[in-house]
Amino acid sequence: MFDLQEYLKQKTSLVDAELQKVLPSEETLPFSLHRAMRYSMFAGGKRIRPILVLAAAEAVGGDAAGAMPAACALEMIHTYSLIHDDLPAMDDDDFRRGRSTNHKVFGEATAILAGDALLTEAFILLSSSQAKGLDASTVRRVISIIARAAGSQGMVGGQVVDMESEGKAIDMATLQYIHTRKTGALLLASIQSGALLGGADEAQFDALTRYGEATGLAFQVADDILDIVGDQAELGKDVGSDQARGKATYPALLGLAEARERAEELCELAITALAGFGREAEPLRQIAEYVVSRTH
Amino acid sequence: MFDLQEYLKQKTSLVDAELQKVLPSEETLPFSLHRAMRYSMFAGGKRIRPILVLAAAEAVGGDAAGAMPAACALEMIHTYSLIHDDLPAMDDDDFRRGRSTNHKVFGEATAILAGDALLTEAFILLSSSQAKGLDASTVRRVISIIARAAGSQGMVGGQVVDMESEGKAIDMATLQYIHTRKTGALLLASIQSGALLGGADEAQFDALTRYGEATGLAFQVADDILDIVGDQAELGKDVGSDQARGKATYPALLGLAEARERAEELCELAITALAGFGREAEPLRQIAEYVVSRTH
Repeated sequence: MFDLQEYLKQKTSLVDAELQKVLPSEETLPFSLHRAMRYSMFAGGKRIRPILVLAAAEAVGGDAAGAMPAACALEMIHTYSLIHDDLPAMDDDDFRRGRSTNHKVFGEATAILAGDALLTEAFILLSSSQAKGLDASTVRRVISIIARAAGSQGMVGGQVVDMESEGKAIDMATLQYIHTRKTGALLLASIQSGALLGGADEAQFDALTRYGEATGLAFQVADDILDIVGDQAELGKDVGSDQARGKATYPALLGLAEARERAEELCELAITALAGFGREAEPLRQIAEYVVSRTH
Repeated sequence: MFDLQEYLKQKTSLVDAELQKVLPSEETLPFSLHRAMRYSMFAGGKRIRPILVLAAAEAVGGDAAGAMPAACALEMIHTYSLIHDDLPAMDDDDFRRGRSTNHKVFGEATAILAGDALLTEAFILLSSSQAKGLDASTVRRVISIIARAAGSQGMVGGQVVDMESEGKAIDMATLQYIHTRKTGALLLASIQSGALLGGADEAQFDALTRYGEATGLAFQVADDILDIVGDQAELGKDVGSDQARGKATYPALLGLAEARERAEELCELAITALAGFGREAEPLRQIAEYVVSRTH
């Protein structure tokens, strides 16, 4: 019987061990920079993106080890985005997951540079990948997918539109623009990278893309709902903080009940996309269900 | 008779045209972000890094067109670093090359994100390179070289140590650490990328690496000297601004005469490294001489 919590725990500890190995140590110059990078990398993140990478590689019968560099790279990009989002010029947050934010500990200048360095480190890792059996053209395609997902028409673009929309009335199209890019793009890139590095054929890649799109959006809808009904301890941020900021959310636009329904539909879509896959895709199926179950 | 100024002018306009083509337009969402990215990309930069890429590709008999994506990527990375360096939390500069800095025009949040997006765009471009005749493993090696040069043990690392050294007495070893990383690393990566994309064999790659190390350092020594004796109009920043900030420089540590001598030696080293090359390396030779001639 497959146990999702056990699976998540195992993968998290694998990813943590690998990140410890690939990130420059605190004894590598410049010490302060590497301390700042590591501070945020080991701040209790749930490693959702790396786990999606590994689970997608396994879903196509591939080797999780070959997908590990991409898994770590995606977590670095996610972490850099959090460090920069928290800056005084951006969300101006003092705490994240119950700990002081990077710039509160290391100062703004170092926090900016630690974010820059983590983003760059992701591409060092991706391009230096020594995983066996990976051909260079697959690696190149993975780098392209991840860079596009993180860039001006991906995650950063979503962040800009989100920022510009604060306190304004926005429509569903704009909300979708924000969500598919700000969080969705990197989640989708995680699935796609894992698929390619696991050896997916084009049909499998397309199916996993549909899964990744649906799950990425479900994840964001669920997050919006949790911001209203969630438990502060589980969430690690103030409940209602999106509302307080006047951020557009699914519950705000659709109402709570319809937002929950939307999350359910997306979960079904995600699972349907995996219809052609076997037991190897069980982690991905259960992850989609888990994402939505958190909203109840 | 080879005319360096004409060569620089021609390459600059080629690079500018290519950058216009590859950067997302101001009519691409999010408009504000792409405007901010383009504002700094077309702010009168001298395109030194791209020109080094193209000249290195030509020096080994390669095609400059195949090296163009790397040329543009390196200029994007250079530009992102300037945007972030100018931020209030860093150097807090209001002007660069006689124009308002990015955050003065677009605000701090957008400037941070425009820098992030330019860094990411560099890797989009490098991984999506459609240049003919390039094999994926060369592209992967070029990405690795550029990412390392830009990362926590390259450009960003140099910036951190430079920042932490302001107003402190530092020794020559620390100054060299800063210079070889903060500017030297990206200049060297430009030469190395051009060499590889131009089809260099390992002996040519090693020779060009020696050229790149020497020229990169000469460039920084020259810059330090120009900060003291230069013409403000040519420099585009306040003469003596390094001194005013208590920044460590070669002239401060060695005296002006010895700093000039050091620059001359580095120039000779650079030209000696090219001894085995033919007329195709003439631009690189003259660039090394030009860098140093500016100090007199």
